[in-house]
Amino acid sequence: MSEYRAPLDEMNFVVDRLHDLTSLSVDINNEDASAELLGAVLSEADKLANQVWSPLNVPGDQQGVRLEDDGVKAADGFAEAYRAYAEGGWGSLYFDPNYGGQGLPFSFAMPVAEMAQASNMSLGLCSMLTAGAIEAIHAHGSDELKDVYLEKMISGEWTGTMNLTEPQAGTDLALLKSSATPNGDHFLIKGQKIFITRGDHDMTDNIVHLVLARLPDAPVGVKGISLFLVPKYLVNADGSLGERNDAYAINVEHKLGIHASPTCVMSYGDNGGAIGYLVGKPHQGLMAMFTMMNNERLVVGLQGVGLADRAYQHALEYARERVQSKAPGQPDSGAIIHHPDIRRMLMSMRSLTEAGRAICYLTAKQIDLSHNADDAEVRAQAQRRVNLLTPIAKGWPTEVAQEVTSHGVQIHGGMGFIEETGAAQFYRDARILPIYEGTTGIQALDLVGRKMLVDGGAAVADLIAEMQADVATYAGDLTAGQANNMREAIAALELSVEQLLSGAADDVMLAGSISFDMLMLAGYVCGGWQMMRANALVEGHENITFAINKKATAAYYLDHVLPRAFGHLRSIQAGSASVMAIPADCL
Amino acid sequence: MSEYRAPLDEMNFVVDRLHDLTSLSVDINNEDASAELLGAVLSEADKLANQVWSPLNVPGDQQGVRLEDDGVKAADGFAEAYRAYAEGGWGSLYFDPNYGGQGLPFSFAMPVAEMAQASNMSLGLCSMLTAGAIEAIHAHGSDELKDVYLEKMISGEWTGTMNLTEPQAGTDLALLKSSATPNGDHFLIKGQKIFITRGDHDMTDNIVHLVLARLPDAPVGVKGISLFLVPKYLVNADGSLGERNDAYAINVEHKLGIHASPTCVMSYGDNGGAIGYLVGKPHQGLMAMFTMMNNERLVVGLQGVGLADRAYQHALEYARERVQSKAPGQPDSGAIIHHPDIRRMLMSMRSLTEAGRAICYLTAKQIDLSHNADDAEVRAQAQRRVNLLTPIAKGWPTEVAQEVTSHGVQIHGGMGFIEETGAAQFYRDARILPIYEGTTGIQALDLVGRKMLVDGGAAVADLIAEMQADVATYAGDLTAGQANNMREAIAALELSVEQLLSGAADDVMLAGSISFDMLMLAGYVCGGWQMMRANALVEGHENITFAINKKATAAYYLDHVLPRAFGHLRSIQAGSASVMAIPADCL
Repeated sequence: MSEYRAPLDEMNFVVDRLHDLTSLSVDINNEDASAELLGAVLSEADKLANQVWSPLNVPGDQQGVRLEDDGVKAADGFAEAYRAYAEGGWGSLYFDPNYGGQGLPFSFAMPVAEMAQASNMSLGLCSMLTAGAIEAIHAHGSDELKDVYLEKMISGEWTGTMNLTEPQAGTDLALLKSSATPNGDHFLIKGQKIFITRGDHDMTDNIVHLVLARLPDAPVGVKGISLFLVPKYLVNADGSLGERNDAYAINVEHKLGIHASPTCVMSYGDNGGAIGYLVGKPHQGLMAMFTMMNNERLVVGLQGVGLADRAYQHALEYARERVQSKAPGQPDSGAIIHHPDIRRMLMSMRSLTEAGRAICYLTAKQIDLSHNADDAEVRAQAQRRVNLLTPIAKGWPTEVAQEVTSHGVQIHGGMGFIEETGAAQFYRDARILPIYEGTTGIQALDLVGRKMLVDGGAAVADLIAEMQADVATYAGDLTAGQANNMREAIAALELSVEQLLSGAADDVMLAGSISFDMLMLAGYVCGGWQMMRANALVEGHENITFAINKKATAAYYLDHVLPRAFGHLRSIQAGSASVMAIPADCL
Repeated sequence: MSEYRAPLDEMNFVVDRLHDLTSLSVDINNEDASAELLGAVLSEADKLANQVWSPLNVPGDQQGVRLEDDGVKAADGFAEAYRAYAEGGWGSLYFDPNYGGQGLPFSFAMPVAEMAQASNMSLGLCSMLTAGAIEAIHAHGSDELKDVYLEKMISGEWTGTMNLTEPQAGTDLALLKSSATPNGDHFLIKGQKIFITRGDHDMTDNIVHLVLARLPDAPVGVKGISLFLVPKYLVNADGSLGERNDAYAINVEHKLGIHASPTCVMSYGDNGGAIGYLVGKPHQGLMAMFTMMNNERLVVGLQGVGLADRAYQHALEYARERVQSKAPGQPDSGAIIHHPDIRRMLMSMRSLTEAGRAICYLTAKQIDLSHNADDAEVRAQAQRRVNLLTPIAKGWPTEVAQEVTSHGVQIHGGMGFIEETGAAQFYRDARILPIYEGTTGIQALDLVGRKMLVDGGAAVADLIAEMQADVATYAGDLTAGQANNMREAIAALELSVEQLLSGAADDVMLAGSISFDMLMLAGYVCGGWQMMRANALVEGHENITFAINKKATAAYYLDHVLPRAFGHLRSIQAGSASVMAIPADCL
């Protein structure tokens, strides 16, 4: 099995040309944000992904992790691979230079994050959660906390975790019970948390847990949740590590996939209470945690893109090598890549991956603008776009990754079902993506509720207007059928938003009944929009094969993938009636 | 975790009313084929599935199988469970009474087979392959072979296997190399076979392998393949077991799913040659094996239905119990079943399962007619329908089972990714279904090639005409939107057949490029057709809740599932151009 290679031309093209890096660098006033530097960064990151992270992916899946008396043990080689990542500065690209970060745009970190996730998702998860924890501490922590923790986390010497879920409180954090009791300059945290990714490991000297818990005077519900920083080892005044904190992994789950990523049951305070420090204001922990989650939702979407790309590379290699049956127009039995149905699957994988990448990177660019644009109105407009795109960028590529990794299995035929082939691992690993960091159902409710109903459809109307303007600009490069699909698909999104806005007040079941279809419709349309733009903007690319392939992939998407939007529209138009027709007790 | 219960009202309804058991019993002149007997049979079979087979499903997955020095060992309890099945006569329902069979219609065996697959697919596979082997020997074997082997196989005392695949010859059996050398009254078989389900086990005294191999004078290609019966133990003249034959499992695969079903690498003739007996005529083995495969393709479709139903039951139970978040219109946090998006997934699972069941059982009814109708024209017409429906009944429910079992995982949220929950097993087990017994790609090529292009679309035109006539009869019971969806979906199938027939000659890539979309389109339309019929024919059913639910499920399918047909049509209309645009070397 060959190792992962990053699609460097594609990644550079999407950041630089499709999403216009030149204008971004002007808008955010960051001269470092050049195509040259981007190219250099990505080329170096590819080496790490290819040579260090990717070769550990299969062994990590086979070996898994284990909980021993003194904690969780990573799979062989993982500690060294994570250290190579940290020492290369790959975890610090977009962070604050005041704490050792490199101050590059988030847009630069996206392709690097994609490489991390594609080459070894179990390791990539550690980078992702650490980055999210850094963001939350940076945005909400006191200067003292920042001074103690940020530099070590940004350097990769310490990792971070996110502790939300309890057995009774998953999607519904209002049911959360963990407690925090004031105790001098800190708090004593008690409670059990589940599904804690890398809640313990032996890859770094310390782990910084961000933990949601309730203060003694907390109001009920989500407005009574506070955020605490709970280090595995306490940190002395001189920065050296002190005593072991009362925070332990007491179990690791046996999961369908990501076997090399320990998913821990964490117990806080079994021996009196884990020492924790408040991050942000009392009772406003959920908002602070959402700083972390919004970043992570986008990176989970990117995990879908990364796994999809790797599954594509893996299936492509098999399709080139496996000889079986004579294809149409071929003289003899040949490689299965010559069969149209294999080609259909490869093109589906490829086009869905490229569409997902364009959406995720676009969201990252808008995040850069929302944080760093000089112009306040540009920042505000970008923030609205980020808010709208985030559930789409999390939900759609992760759903699509199920299909793409399944095609990867299917192209291998019977061998795809045999674990040693490797195709099944991508399929198993991908299955967590539409679940964690908010299920697809939660993303879909976020999209139709907070991102559409709350503003009366203003943000999505802006997006639709921009897509329509782009159709006017770029549709001339398409076939009539493709242009027609694109126009109709945008109109389908518009129609379904109208239906949502006009119907939701009278039918409380409407939004939830159509939310999944609306998320998928929005994803397909946004993907089509970006593929249409890419088809035009790749014109004149110096790599002619890349340009030809990009155009052909866009054509495939617009011909064969985008039409799924019409099925979603028709389903949306049927509303909630038959969704809710059978009473819950009679199902 | 509760055990599987067969949906008895639904199964009886589909066989008896939806597919009109009364007319079948007249047409095939079988007075035993009554609704009363059907009900009694299914009710008893449910007990075995619920009490004996289902409880072993999870332990079997966890324990798996192992190859020891003296052969493959089944998981604990599997031998006893298989014996209970055999002793209950469940393996003999539709077979020839001359060899101990019960002579019931195949239509009776279908729901029983579904229960077997749903309760324990790893065991169900053994029943399925044994039944296929019985059919092939019954149809093509000499009287002597039939006398020696059939009774023991029909009684369940011996099991059967199917040996086609070799490492270089999977889909493309022309590449097959195993050899058969004449040696007195038998042949000596040599060669290696892979992916042999239950190629060895210790559940029964003997195993009857059907093996494809080449005679010394065989023409090249598929026209030089012969079929041989190779018993694990030779059978003495008095019917007792003799020497161990030279046929051994030399490896069992480590697979994504069906862990309790040994998938063996079989080696024939390592010690001089395995004794085998010719089944049917020399060089016509593939045709004889297709007797076995056509039955098995339908039963694989049924495995999709069975797994889907079980995943639905399992997810429904969780959705009722798991309390999380306040649903619209509810005063407080409650069970997640009250959330519309959970309901959407449950209704998708339910409606896809029911549609798939109706298609599979319809195919079984046509098989009964094709074999046993008194009228030769009825037999011929039924055979044409069986030929057309088989790739749809295999391909569509198995693709759909991926979605349904994935919904089952998703409804469990984070718990769905944890193996102990059980949802992941259905998802893993289901992944083999679109692969074995001919991949979906092969089913799709069979559909557009042998079943549409060869007869100039005659058989599918007959089917479309029948569906249109049924719309005229039954659409009055639907909403305008549902009736419109149904009419448009049938028209979409008609349009795509026209495109195939008119375009395939000039574009050799067309059929393969659109074949998957055509298979899925045909599946959705056939499913809609049957759900529309069910909506009308359930009227007056004595179980009022069943009738109300059936109507609501049909409504959901016609509102929310059937519209996917329109996306497939649009993709078909785009033809092969962008599927094949990137040359194989440039991908």
